[in-house]
Amino acid sequence: MAESGRGRKGEHTRQAILHTAMALASVEGLEGLTIGRLATELGMSKSGLFAHFGSKEELQLATVDAAGAVVRGELEALVGEQRGLAALRAAVDGWLNYIERRHFPGGCFFSGAAAEFDARPGPLRDRIAATLGQLRNAFASFAAEAQAAGELKATVDPEQLAFEIQALGSAASFMLLLYDDPRALVWARRAITERFESLGTTPRDPAPTIQ
Amino acid sequence: MAESGRGRKGEHTRQAILHTAMALASVEGLEGLTIGRLATELGMSKSGLFAHFGSKEELQLATVDAAGAVVRGELEALVGEQRGLAALRAAVDGWLNYIERRHFPGGCFFSGAAAEFDARPGPLRDRIAATLGQLRNAFASFAAEAQAAGELKATVDPEQLAFEIQALGSAASFMLLLYDDPRALVWARRAITERFESLGTTPRDPAPTIQ
Repeated sequence: MAESGRGRKGEHTRQAILHTAMALASVEGLEGLTIGRLATELGMSKSGLFAHFGSKEELQLATVDAAGAVVRGELEALVGEQRGLAALRAAVDGWLNYIERRHFPGGCFFSGAAAEFDARPGPLRDRIAATLGQLRNAFASFAAEAQAAGELKATVDPEQLAFEIQALGSAASFMLLLYDDPRALVWARRAITERFESLGTTPRDPAPTIQ
Repeated sequence: MAESGRGRKGEHTRQAILHTAMALASVEGLEGLTIGRLATELGMSKSGLFAHFGSKEELQLATVDAAGAVVRGELEALVGEQRGLAALRAAVDGWLNYIERRHFPGGCFFSGAAAEFDARPGPLRDRIAATLGQLRNAFASFAAEAQAAGELKATVDPEQLAFEIQALGSAASFMLLLYDDPRALVWARRAITERFESLGTTPRDPAPTIQ
């Protein structure tokens, strides 16, 4: 009992540390996430932090995993039992809302992490690439489901559509922060809506048929 | 004569330093661009570097300006005397080719810099935001010219189109590096071509009229 109580407390502390680590890394980058910097932010001792994470790299990898879990959790909650195009729309709307309300103070965690580590081979880049790939694959499988259900045209490439969605959302995240300009979200939403309309089999807002 | 000779030599050295600084910053980020790190890379003394750049921030700002000049120079050379849609196509093709041939080892300089500094207010963020804005504005003015010339539909929002192009190119740059996967360039080119076709008044590859 006592041991499992301590185990739960340890896990609780670890989660609280990772919460602060994600926010810090989203602003200052994963490279800025040192044991010392995080200890100052949390008002903890460095040795206390070392008890949870044995090295800077271990802390960085745990932070990437924690951010992946946050995003997967959000995605599952948004999509629920929906399938196909409804699931894709719910996932995209949810992601853009999540960017808009600035869940992480430094914007979309993975867009920032990808930009930071794309040219630096190693375990961190591999972990970031794998997590971003899972998210793009989630968009691509919803698109493939939608296509199989006849909701998207047979000519649609689900992987390309997923790439486009990820590109537009990431760019909106960067622009929102860089210029504090909400037009980026408007542009991203409109661009994705226009793609769904032109790729869908039942356009909501068809173009006039007479030129 | 002698003075102007020294002036030219000084300027030549400064440009050589900035060339290395851009490559280094594209891989390790602008924050990793310290006087000490750059001195090691160049085999110069720190005091020699300080003669050119008085502080880390001055070096970072000069590097952003140098990268802006590289990109503007490439853009002018690509576009030449072209106007409207031809200018926009030339600029976009050139930019994607530039990403593909990895001019900077760490990918598109400004996409990386924007991601790194978007949540860190200050002179560096302002300079990055202004330069990225100039490039997006160049795309937007070519699109507006194309619209005025009747090459793009009247319903096109030139600023939104410029945002979409920048989003797709940046995402291709990140993915190319992150996964060493050339499909990102294929997807970005195809997505932009499809936008031009659906927004243009004379589609090159019209969709079949019979569903």
